[in-house]
Order: sequence, then structure tokens, then C-alpha cells
Amino acid sequence: MADSPRISVLGLGAMGRALAETFVKGGYSTTVWNRSSGKDAELIALGAQSPGALAAALTAGEVIVACLLDHASVHETLDPVVESLRGRILVNLTSTRPDQARELAEWAGRHDIEYLDGGIMATPHLIGGPAAAIYYSGSRRAFDEYRPVLETLGGAEYFGADAGNAAAVDFALLAAMYTMFAGVLHGAAVVRSVGMSAEDFGQRAANFLSAMTFSLPTVGKRVDSGDYSDPEQDLYFTKSAVDAIVATSRAAGVDLDIIGAVRDLIDRQIASGHGREGWERIFESLRP
Amino acid sequence: MADSPRISVLGLGAMGRALAETFVKGGYSTTVWNRSSGKDAELIALGAQSPGALAAALTAGEVIVACLLDHASVHETLDPVVESLRGRILVNLTSTRPDQARELAEWAGRHDIEYLDGGIMATPHLIGGPAAAIYYSGSRRAFDEYRPVLETLGGAEYFGADAGNAAAVDFALLAAMYTMFAGVLHGAAVVRSVGMSAEDFGQRAANFLSAMTFSLPTVGKRVDSGDYSDPEQDLYFTKSAVDAIVATSRAAGVDLDIIGAVRDLIDRQIASGHGREGWERIFESLRP
Ligand SMILES: NC(=O)c1ccc[n+]([C@@H]2O[C@H](COP(=O)([O-])OP(=O)(O)OC[C@H]3O[C@@H](n4cnc5c(N)ncnc54)[C@H](OP(=O)(O)O)[C@@H]3O)[C@@H](O)[C@H]2O)c1
Ligand SMILES: NC(=O)c1ccc[n+]([C@@H]2O[C@H](COP(=O)([O-])OP(=O)(O)OC[C@H]3O[C@@H](n4cnc5c(N)ncnc54)[C@H](OP(=O)(O)O)[C@@H]3O)[C@@H](O)[C@H]2O)c1
Repeated sequence: MADSPRISVLGLGAMGRALAETFVKGGYSTTVWNRSSGKDAELIALGAQSPGALAAALTAGEVIVACLLDHASVHETLDPVVESLRGRILVNLTSTRPDQARELAEWAGRHDIEYLDGGIMATPHLIGGPAAAIYYSGSRRAFDEYRPVLETLGGAEYFGADAGNAAAVDFALLAAMYTMFAGVLHGAAVVRSVGMSAEDFGQRAANFLSAMTFSLPTVGKRVDSGDYSDPEQDLYFTKSAVDAIVATSRAAGVDLDIIGAVRDLIDRQIASGHGREGWERIFESLRP
Repeated sequence: MADSPRISVLGLGAMGRALAETFVKGGYSTTVWNRSSGKDAELIALGAQSPGALAAALTAGEVIVACLLDHASVHETLDPVVESLRGRILVNLTSTRPDQARELAEWAGRHDIEYLDGGIMATPHLIGGPAAAIYYSGSRRAFDEYRPVLETLGGAEYFGADAGNAAAVDFALLAAMYTMFAGVLHGAAVVRSVGMSAEDFGQRAANFLSAMTFSLPTVGKRVDSGDYSDPEQDLYFTKSAVDAIVATSRAAGVDLDIIGAVRDLIDRQIASGHGREGWERIFESLRP
């Protein structure tokens, strides 16, 4: 692996350690750095370098992979040493909002740093395996040239030159995930009122919801078409189902914030005269 | 199948036809009835009886399976002929709320009808196959004695003598499903702002969310324990993630009803001083 690029990993939290370990095991010459000491022991044992000083860690790497806490911590860490980054590739896997990723891309551009933003769609123990995916946006050249490096960590996908795009897709999926979790906990509160455990419900919800996800591409296709006529399930039907769920939840004493918000999206479309169109039309209640 | 019970199916909508067809193909002597005429032709061709008059359809069956529109339509249909139901088994697969199922169970009890309420967790084309599940509650004796009949339609599970229980579990799962759909459409609205199609997002969401469902039984277990200490992900972390999603959604011009409701559940627990506990604690914002 004499020709493979030297890599420096900044941030040895749970995720940074997983990234660094995967690079070392992948045969890359890997240098690590963490703000507080003591998190590098296992990595050193595996063969990583750990010079201690941040500037030394930066100059050791051709590709700098940052996995810190948040946007502010990236600036806090890199602003004082920005000259050592000049001419290097910065792959920022710290979770940031799209606007923050764009700000970092501009900042990098001003300092002659090639910037690639990444959103990690995996937990640390999945890194390096087939179930890990990382979404990238920003420098196309960096993505193409260093693709083998990036693919060491998991599936690598590129979402365009706008550095904010990967974060937008990442956050959109997380929005769906947290909303799903809230819906499942709502359901758990309903069934607990009739004596079923939340664990039992969680197992049923896992089976039922993962089966129901099969329809999501078709739902998306209808949304893209903007044509909600000739529905499989119209908004009137959906309203009667969701109204019944709301009434059942209320009778069980369960808070209505979540399911009430879903009902409101439906009601707005019906109020606009679209009751006979497909339920997917609630997209029109959400989009700009 | 000489000893197998004779079955009458009331209601030949999309679901009722699937039920009747499955009984006929399963070798049961099957009689069908529908309010308006003309929906029985295929079933008659398969071997079903269709006497036309409702009272005749009721007396022909030992087990009466109703699959009408809603609670009101069940009373509208059966009240005038309630004497013909005396001594029979009524399996009501019409979707009703738990309180409506309980009302029907009482009504049945007053007329010497054995009542089993069912919630169908499947679409018509799945009926009779391994992916169909129907949840039952009400008469235990009827469930046990007619289990082979019920299992002709798909997996049959019993949730207790309270006739409302099956509907409660059914509606709780539907609450989770509709909420998940709303979350996915929220995400689709976010990614469309960066040029990704909703169909592409739907495919990603299907993969990502079905992978994420693996955690739901563990989430439920923690909720059942009521102990949210020693979290894998605490509420402060979850709040920073969801706040970032809200800010990203707002910047993209996406409506905040859905994701804002999720954030509010988190904020309420943090306001009560639980920020260092597990995110699953949002259950406590929902439950009675
Ligand atoms: N863990 C996951 O499942 C996961 C999944 C997807 C994305 N991510 C993202 O990956 C990033 C890291 O996550 P993690 O799980 O590794 O977090 P973590 O275990 O909490 O580690 C946080 C890391 O950030 C460092 N840090 C915090 N503030 C800093 C500052 N002001 N200056 C310099 N370093 C600072 C910490 O250094 P000290 O040791 O000195 O505190 C530590 O190395 C986050 O943006 C997270 O959202 C994580
Ligand atoms: N389809 C599904 O995927 C599905 C899944 C789970 C549960 N379910 C439940 O199954 C039930 C039937 O659904 P479906 O899909 O078969 O609906 P559908 O195709 O719309 O059929 C409705 C049936 O109800 C009858 N009906 C309506 N109002 C009536 C009244 N006042 N008196 C007598 N009959 C009346 C209709 O008779 P006419 O032909 O005379 O109008 C028709 O047979 C509903 O409660 C539904 O929620 C359906």
C-alpha cells in the first residue's frame, strides 16, 4: 500500500475511533488526534501514529478526516491551525446542518483546502462493513480521487457540489426516523392501556412497519408526479381512519400532539377540496 | 370437509370478496351477501351460495363473518335481522374503534350472539397467505373452537376477552404507520429542496427505516422498565439532532407541524429535568 494516501483522523469519540481503526486495518498509514488525551491507546497498539500536537497530525496526513462533536467544534479545532491544512483534503464527517456544511466549504475554499462533507448513515460498529453508508457532497474531484479511501469505511455516495446536500439527505432520513420512533411510542402508549407491553408492541411494529416501507418508492413517485387523482386510498378514507385513531388515543388518555399533527396535514388538504385525491397529497401540506 | 362449519360472509367490498374467496377455496360451504347486487358473480362461479335475502344468508351460516364499511353500517345491516343471528357466531372484521367493538359485543350479548371482533392487518390480496395477520378479541370460546376457520384467512392471534383490544392494537399500529408516512413525506419535502426526487428518497427511506426498526423491541423494553438512566442516546443529544433537523426544515421552507411535534415531546422531558436520560423517555410525554 506504498502509494495509498496517508490519513489523519481528528476526533476519537466512539465514531472517530471506529473510523481510525478501519483505516489502520485497511492498511492505510493513519495518524490520530483527539482534544483530550488517552483515547488513542488501542489505535496506537494497532499501528496508528499519535503525535499529540494537532499541527503535527495535520502535516502527517494527505487526507484529513474530522469527526468532532458539531460545527462549532470544527472551527474551534481547525481555525488556529488552518495554515497546516492548506493544499490538503478535508473530509468532514462531523454532523452539521446543510448551511453549516456550506459555511465550512466556503471557509475551506478561502484557505485553499479541498472540502468534502459527509453524513454517516451508520453506528460505529457498522463502520467498515456492508451495512454502513456515508453520503458525501462538496468537491467532486476529491470524491472521485479518494473514493477507495472513502469506500474503506462503507458505501460512499456523492450528492453534488453543494456541500450542504449530503447533510440535507442525512437530516431528511433522520427526520423520518425520529418521526417513526415518535409514532411507535404513541402506539405503545395506546396498547399499554389495554395491557400489552411496549416490548411486545415494538416487535409487532418492527414487523409491520418494515413491511409497510415497501410502498415508499411508489408513494414518492406519486408525489413527484404531482398527480394525486385515481387514488388507491383517498384523503376522505384516510381522514376517517386517522380520526378513529385520534378518538381511540384520546379515550386511552394518550397525548394527541403526534397523531393530531398527522390529522392536521390531512385536514388541510381536505379543506382545500382534495378529499377524493390520494392520501399522498399530504406532501402538499408540508412542502414549501 | 363435511364437518367444517358453514360460513356466511356479509359485505363484498374488496376485502369481503377476498375473505369469501379464501373460504370457498379452503373448502368451506360459503354463503355471501352484499347490500347492492352484482358483486357476487365471481364467487358464485367459484361455488359460493348467494340467496339474495340477508335473513337467508344468516340462517345458512354457523359462523357469520361481517366485513362492512364501519360500525354504523354493521348496526344498519344487522339490527333489523338480529333474531336470525341468535345462537350464531358473529366474527366482525369491519374496522371499528375499541369502544365501538365493545358496544357491539354488548349488543351481541343481549341477543345471545357469540361475538368475536377482528382487525385485519393485511390488504385484500394478502388474505389467505402467510403475510396476512388478523387480530381478534372477544369470545375466547369462539376463537378457540373456530380457530381453523380463522386461520384459513391468515395468522390468527387472540388479545383477550375485552372485544376492544384487537382494535386498540390494530389502531396503535396504524398510528405508527401513518406517523411514519408523514415523517417520510416531511423528509421528501426537505430533499426535494436540494433536487432529489421523492421516489429516490422513498427508496432510501424504505431501506433506512426498515433497518432502524430492529431497535424497536429494545426501545419498548426500556419503556416497560420505566428506567431511562444509563442511556445509549440521551435527550440532550436527541434535542440537538432534532433542533438541527427543525432548522434545516425551516431553512428549506418545509412545514414544521410534524417535526415540531416530535421536538415538543423531547422539550417537555428536558424541561422536567430528564436531559441526561434516554431519548425513549419521550414515551412519558405521550402516555396517560
Ligand atoms: N455515534 C454515532 O452513532 C454517530 C452516527 C452518525 C454520525 N455521528 C456523528 O459523528 C460525530 C462524532 O460522534 P461520536 O459518536 O464519536 O461522539 P462522541 O463519542 O461524543 O465524541 C465526540 C468527539 O468530539 C470531540 N470534541 C467535542 N468538542 C470538541 C471541541 N470543542 N474541540 C475538539 N474536539 C471536540 C471529543 O473530544 P474529547 O474526547 O476531548 O471530548 C470527541 O472526540 C458527531 O458529529 C456525531 O453526530 C455519530
Ligand atoms: N381494503 C383493505 O385493505 C382493508 C384492510 C383492513 C381492513 N379493512 C376494513 O374492511 C372493511 C371493508 O373494507 P373494503 O376494502 O372491503 O371496503 P369497500 O371495498 O369500500 O367495501 C365496503 C363494503 O361495505 C358495504 N357497505 C357500506 N355501507 C354499508 C351499509 N350502510 N350497509 C351495508 N353494507 C354497507 C359495501 O356495500 P355496497 O357494495 O352495497 O356499497 C361494501 O360491500 C372496512 O371496515 C375496512 O376498514 C380493509
